[in-house]
Amino acid sequence: MNLELALRMCEAAVRQAAREGALISVAVVDAGGHLVAFQRMDGARIAGPALAAAKAYTAVAHHMPTADLAPLAVPGGELYGLAGDRYVCSGGGVPLTGLGGEGQVRGAIGVSGGNVRQDVACAEAAAALHEGR
Amino acid sequence: MNLELALRMCEAAVRQAAREGALISVAVVDAGGHLVAFQRMDGARIAGPALAAAKAYTAVAHHMPTADLAPLAVPGGELYGLAGDRYVCSGGGVPLTGLGGEGQVRGAIGVSGGNVRQDVACAEAAAALHEGR
Amino acid sequence: MNLELALRMCEAAVRQAAREGALISVAVVDAGGHLVAFQRMDGARIAGPALAAAKAYTAVAHHMPTADLAPLAVPGGELYGLAGDRYVCSGGGVPLTGLGGEGQVRGAIGVSGGNVRQDVACAEAAAALHEGR
Amino acid sequence: MNLELALRMCEAAVRQAAREGALISVAVVDAGGHLVAFQRMDGARIAGPALAAAKAYTAVAHHMPTADLAPLAVPGGELYGLAGDRYVCSGGGVPLTGLGGEGQVRGAIGVSGGNVRQDVACAEAAAALHEGR
Repeated sequence: MNLELALRMCEAAVRQAAREGALISVAVVDAGGHLVAFQRMDGARIAGPALAAAKAYTAVAHHMPTADLAPLAVPGGELYGLAGDRYVCSGGGVPLTGLGGEGQVRGAIGVSGGNVRQDVACAEAAAALHEGR
Repeated sequence: MNLELALRMCEAAVRQAAREGALISVAVVDAGGHLVAFQRMDGARIAGPALAAAKAYTAVAHHMPTADLAPLAVPGGELYGLAGDRYVCSGGGVPLTGLGGEGQVRGAIGVSGGNVRQDVACAEAAAALHEGR
Repeated sequence: MNLELALRMCEAAVRQAAREGALISVAVVDAGGHLVAFQRMDGARIAGPALAAAKAYTAVAHHMPTADLAPLAVPGGELYGLAGDRYVCSGGGVPLTGLGGEGQVRGAIGVSGGNVRQDVACAEAAAALHEGR
Repeated sequence: MNLELALRMCEAAVRQAAREGALISVAVVDAGGHLVAFQRMDGARIAGPALAAAKAYTAVAHHMPTADLAPLAVPGGELYGLAGDRYVCSGGGVPLTGLGGEGQVRGAIGVSGGNVRQDVACAEAAAALHEGR
């Protein structure tokens, strides 16, 4: 992960949000879950900084999209009870991996502000820039 | 948001609570979620200061009434797992918007102490004072 | 402590702040350290809600003015290391006691926003309303 | 505060850091202390996201540069003991005010990663873009 790529991923997420008619916050974190870049669109909710960063952290921490974690977090699921400032188990967090699928996780994107489908679409638009690197 | 209006909103919530036979705490926060005014009725629970302020914060952070967030916070819902000091997803938090529906969120009211229906009624009585401003 | 008295104490603090040319936040807590009333003047810093409430909590928790705690909190002092969201050991927190000096602590006032001298003056103006009750 | 301006302020801070030979993180927050934009230079410490955001929050919460808060935070000073996730009282946080000196605080910049002089220089380079707006 580097700042130049992180900025272009943020911009891609924001462009997708504009297409979706959503107002989002987008966070890019490195392999350690630490913020590299963050952008909040004008008019987007103040919940965004915490939630977008938490989704990105959660995705990189578990090496999977937060949308896939959601079913594990329901009562009886294996992540039930996980909570705290940095865990958000709803869609919009996407890990960034190297080429070949099995690659190392190099960071993650987190998007918050639209509905879950919109957040996921924005995160995936950003992640697409990372693929193949 | 200003103190004079915030105080009148608190008083309106307390008057409504008296009509309802409820003992409440009421918090008014600004657009950043920071407290402007707070009042706890005599005999109201000591949980009120934390819960009323958290409902107001949650409403302003998400730009929607906390009553609307409650169904999203159930297991499997898109806000499931949201937790922390400042999040309460049950009724009684109401955002305050400017004229015209599309207006900016200028703050929020949070009420805690009665049952959910009573908390919502008190918050709405307070919010009514803000409308049209 | 009751709401009606707490409100009058807040108003007394705000009036004193206006005389001082300060913009303050004022918190009144009960004997358990829980908020009864809070007011933030227009233009006062957003640090006020946390700091005024923390000063009031600290004053009631230690049964002494926060100004007197400050020297105990320096390195080597007996409260050195006390820290956290709810502890503030600078002037502006004043406990409220019953008649006769030895009386029970019934709550506290906390003021933040001016300089220390102003904060103390505002808190004492509010506390004066409580004396003799 | 808006995203376009916040991004240009981040870029100005990063350019100044390059001139200084420092590797920094820079955060821009709105008047409520909530993140609008954040950038971490390649190679900058992972402490940056927390510290830059905390400096920006502290500057906006207290309406003053964090460099001016530092002397107040020493043992015996009036802010001594202030602590927590969101408070950092060393140089590098600068509030952003409107025209005319008496203007409202509209947000803040926080920079972390260089030495204090470098952090302040980067924050001021960013703040210069805001002046006159």
